[in-house]
Formats: sequence, structure tokens, C-alpha cells
Amino acid sequence: MSEVIQDLWRTIEGRKMNPPPGSYTAQLFAAGLPRIAQKVGEEGVETVVASLSQGDDRLIAEMTDLLYHCLVLLAARGLSWDDVENELARRFK
Amino acid sequence: MSEVIQDLWRTIEGRKMNPPPGSYTAQLFAAGLPRIAQKVGEEGVETVVASLSQGDDRLIAEMTDLLYHCLVLLAARGLSWDDVENELARRFK
Amino acid sequence: MSEVIQDLWRTIEGRKMNPPPGSYTAQLFAAGLPRIAQKVGEEGVETVVASLSQGDDRLIAEMTDLLYHCLVLLAARGLSWDDVENELARRFK
Amino acid sequence: MSEVIQDLWRTIEGRKMNPPPGSYTAQLFAAGLPRIAQKVGEEGVETVVASLSQGDDRLIAEMTDLLYHCLVLLAARGLSWDDVENELARRFK
Repeated sequence: MSEVIQDLWRTIEGRKMNPPPGSYTAQLFAAGLPRIAQKVGEEGVETVVASLSQGDDRLIAEMTDLLYHCLVLLAARGLSWDDVENELARRFK
Repeated sequence: MSEVIQDLWRTIEGRKMNPPPGSYTAQLFAAGLPRIAQKVGEEGVETVVASLSQGDDRLIAEMTDLLYHCLVLLAARGLSWDDVENELARRFK
Repeated sequence: MSEVIQDLWRTIEGRKMNPPPGSYTAQLFAAGLPRIAQKVGEEGVETVVASLSQGDDRLIAEMTDLLYHCLVLLAARGLSWDDVENELARRFK
Repeated sequence: MSEVIQDLWRTIEGRKMNPPPGSYTAQLFAAGLPRIAQKVGEEGVETVVASLSQGDDRLIAEMTDLLYHCLVLLAARGLSWDDVENELARRFK
């Protein structure tokens, strides 16, 4: 895991264990898996639209949203971004 | 960028510059941006379905597919996974 | 076209020709095709999530949203729901 | 319900009750709700991509695929296209 993803991952896990009031991440965990999954799907759609009709900054912003919500989804399912990177290594190395 | 994503990134860039026959990645670049964007959207949907109705291995496999196609999309647009990680750092640090 | 879809279709075409202030449909046309397409994709995702994790009322509501945004998308592209029904007839009759 | 959708609806219900070998619709019912939901989401994505980067024929074809898989999804959940049209009438009349 890169340093920046590791930092964000620790923050997400912290919001899950110890939800601060007003935290968007904590609200996602409270809303539950269907809501988190919906956000992943929606950010996927926004990434598609940005890639076909918008500039670089917007595409990067949408893909960053997608990555963030994927991390929250993994945490909600008790998994980790390490599992994704390990699967990537297993396939491509 | 983590080592495994960096390795895959170099491979994807290599397939773009110098497409080997039979390479799936090279076929995606040849098919063009709408096809690559479609795959990102579809893998997003498969991640949603896996998160709500399938086991951990399937969810990890779908999210790995999603990440891979996001990397190909970035390369097709002349961007990099570094752009996503930099945007993440900008927002969350 | 069924009567209810025909009624809605006429309303949508009217909002496109003669946009009343405050109309959501008129706002969609003003926002343009990428925004309308995004809404279709997002309602598709919400239909997926509802079908796997929510009750009948919610699924029907999401699919109705999806249909409405498909009609707006057709109007924005200068097409009609008749084109979809004709294609359906061509395939299945 | 328009005549063409009613005809297709009857066919879909027939495939569900009495699945003929080799029927795609019967295969979808056998594969189950997550598979059907996945197809709805994927056709939604293909509709998005077609609306932003492809011609009218392709957009109509993708939206027809989307409508067909929505009908199968409704049948799999024990609902009907009438429920969608009734909800539409309730909202817009």
C-alpha cells in the first residue's frame, strides 16, 4: 500500500471504530453496506461520464471519489486494500 | 504508488506504446476510450453486486478488475495513478 | 406507447421546447447530455441496489426514476420511446 | 402497458414458469437475481456510453437491452411493468 492510501485507510478504520459526529465516512458506515455499494456504483458512473465528456481534473476527482468509496466498502466488509493489491500481485507477477 | 501498482502501471504503459498481439490490455487501447470507460462502469456494477450478494473472494476479484481497468483508462487519457494518489493526498492530508 | 408514457413524453417534450422556471426536467435539458446520461447510470445503479437489498416499493420507485431519465435522454438526443418499442417489436415479434 | 411490452412480458413470464432449453431469458432466471441485477446495471452503463459516444441505432439498441433486462428483473422479483407504469401515473398525473 502506498503511504497516502495507508494514511487514508487508517483514518477510515478509525472512523469505523470510533465514529466522530459530522464525519461523512462515519455516516456511510452508519447508513450500511447497500448505501456504500450504491456510492461505489455511482462514482463508477461518474468516472465513465468524466472520461468521455470532461477534462482531466474532473476525471481525476471522480476516480479519487471512486477509490475512497472502494476503501470504505472494503472496511465495511472487513476486508482491506491489501487484499486488492495482493490479488493484483497474484495475477500480474 | 505501491510497488505492485507501479509494476502493473509500467506493463500497461508498455502495452500502449508497443502492443503485443493477443494482449487484452493492447486490445482495450485499440478499442478506444468508450470501450475502456464501459469496462470501468461494468466492473463498478460487478463490485456493487459482489458487495451485496457474494463472498469476499469474489468482491476482491471484482474490485481488482475495477482497479486494473481504471489504470488502463488513466493511461488512455494520458494520465497516471499518481494523479489519483496526489489528489487523495491533497484532500485528506 | 402506453397512455401514461405518452402523457409523460408530451410533458417532457414540452419542457424541452418551452422550459418553465423551476422544472427539474427543464434543468436536466439545460445541464446537457453528460448530466442526463449520468442520471441514467446512477438510477441504473440504484435499481441494482434496490433489487438486491430493498423492498418492492423502493425497487419500483428506482425503476420509475430510471425510466423517466431514459425518456429525458431520448428527448435530448432527438429520439423517442417509440424507437425503443419499435426495436423491441423488431427483435421479439 | 403498450402492446409490444405486453407481448414481451407474457413471453418472459412464460419462460419463468416453463423454461425452454436454450432460452436466454430462462438462463437469466436460473442464474438468479444477482446475475439479472448485474445485467441491468451493465446495460445502464452501456446506455450511458452509447448516449455520449455512439450513434442513434446503438443507443436505441442499448436502451432496448436495458428495458428487456428490467422486465426480467421485475418478473424475478414477482413484480410487473404495470407497477412501474402505475407509479409513473401516480407521480405525473
